[in-house]
Amino acid sequence: MKTMTDDLRRISVVLFEGFELLDVFGPVELFSMVPDRLAIEFTGPEAGPVASSQGVQVTATTRYDVAAIPDIMLIPGGQGTRRLVNDEAFLSWLRAWTTPASLVTSVCTGSAVLAAAGLLDGYRATSNKAAFAWVREQSENVDWIAQARWVEDRDRWTSSGVAAGMDMAAALLADLFGKDVAHGATTRAELEVHDDASWDPFAKIYGLAG
Amino acid sequence: MKTMTDDLRRISVVLFEGFELLDVFGPVELFSMVPDRLAIEFTGPEAGPVASSQGVQVTATTRYDVAAIPDIMLIPGGQGTRRLVNDEAFLSWLRAWTTPASLVTSVCTGSAVLAAAGLLDGYRATSNKAAFAWVREQSENVDWIAQARWVEDRDRWTSSGVAAGMDMAAALLADLFGKDVAHGATTRAELEVHDDASWDPFAKIYGLAG
Repeated sequence: MKTMTDDLRRISVVLFEGFELLDVFGPVELFSMVPDRLAIEFTGPEAGPVASSQGVQVTATTRYDVAAIPDIMLIPGGQGTRRLVNDEAFLSWLRAWTTPASLVTSVCTGSAVLAAAGLLDGYRATSNKAAFAWVREQSENVDWIAQARWVEDRDRWTSSGVAAGMDMAAALLADLFGKDVAHGATTRAELEVHDDASWDPFAKIYGLAG
Repeated sequence: MKTMTDDLRRISVVLFEGFELLDVFGPVELFSMVPDRLAIEFTGPEAGPVASSQGVQVTATTRYDVAAIPDIMLIPGGQGTRRLVNDEAFLSWLRAWTTPASLVTSVCTGSAVLAAAGLLDGYRATSNKAAFAWVREQSENVDWIAQARWVEDRDRWTSSGVAAGMDMAAALLADLFGKDVAHGATTRAELEVHDDASWDPFAKIYGLAG
């Protein structure tokens, strides 16, 4: 297994039935801009097609229980998270798949799954704004931040809903490889990112901020 | 076949080997927010997995030659477009798949393929900024607009690179269904869009504007 000290870091995206498309492919688009630094893998319940919330299927290359522990994990949100927070077998695998060396990231309601697994205990975190009340219920041991585009707290990075994942991904690239690398990636994607983690007009729209 | 006068419009995304992920899933995320108005399909060289530029595979539900002509077509960009502009069989199919009633849209270098097929003749259009010189070469019969987030010209909507597809998709939702519907979709996706089609800082970065 490669570790964080190698040049090429392995990032694994956890697919599950009912994952949200843009939660995955926003960050993946940016991560794919630095192929010399990041190798991207997709793991699922089985190797093979996994249906998104929108129906369209994306192919997982490895099955959860045989997937090597990555340097960086990304778990998206989507309707499927409603089921996963109660799926003890999945949560147990997710815990075992996470080591003290892991960088654990989530987009949208992916943080509800991390919270249900206990992987955000003692951390600050955020999530999708429309689903925030439900996400909070997944753990009292998390310091939930309602108004945030994303929250980075040591080895846990969690973003707000859907499109916020792209801003978090750009910030993560900057943190790992420097601002120039991040800027190169977003420029190639013609993406204007929000680089202020506290920018979050959606918190107010959903009644979560003054 | 459903037509533009029915309540539910059919939008087909043209997948091909080497399509760019966010070109597809940015717009698809927004389109999927209005499932009562838009049915989204994916067509490919074969029904089954199609590899993106990034490697990860997405499942096409129908093969090009048996796919019903949709109300709205979306063709993404990506490395695969370099090959498609010289693929006469593909271009011939694309022309035949387009009727006077079709709304034809593209993201990024998807417009190079449309231009190569002659489907932008007499239209204004834009494309990816890093690849603009190459895109221009695909047709002299197109009024190429270098500085534009997207260009809408009658039944042809073309966007700039990658992330610009999301802004175009939001504008298209507003045009088809009204601003409230578009705003609802972007708010659910926690996406701040640019609603000014002339906003394009990337044109300058790539030396295409003063």
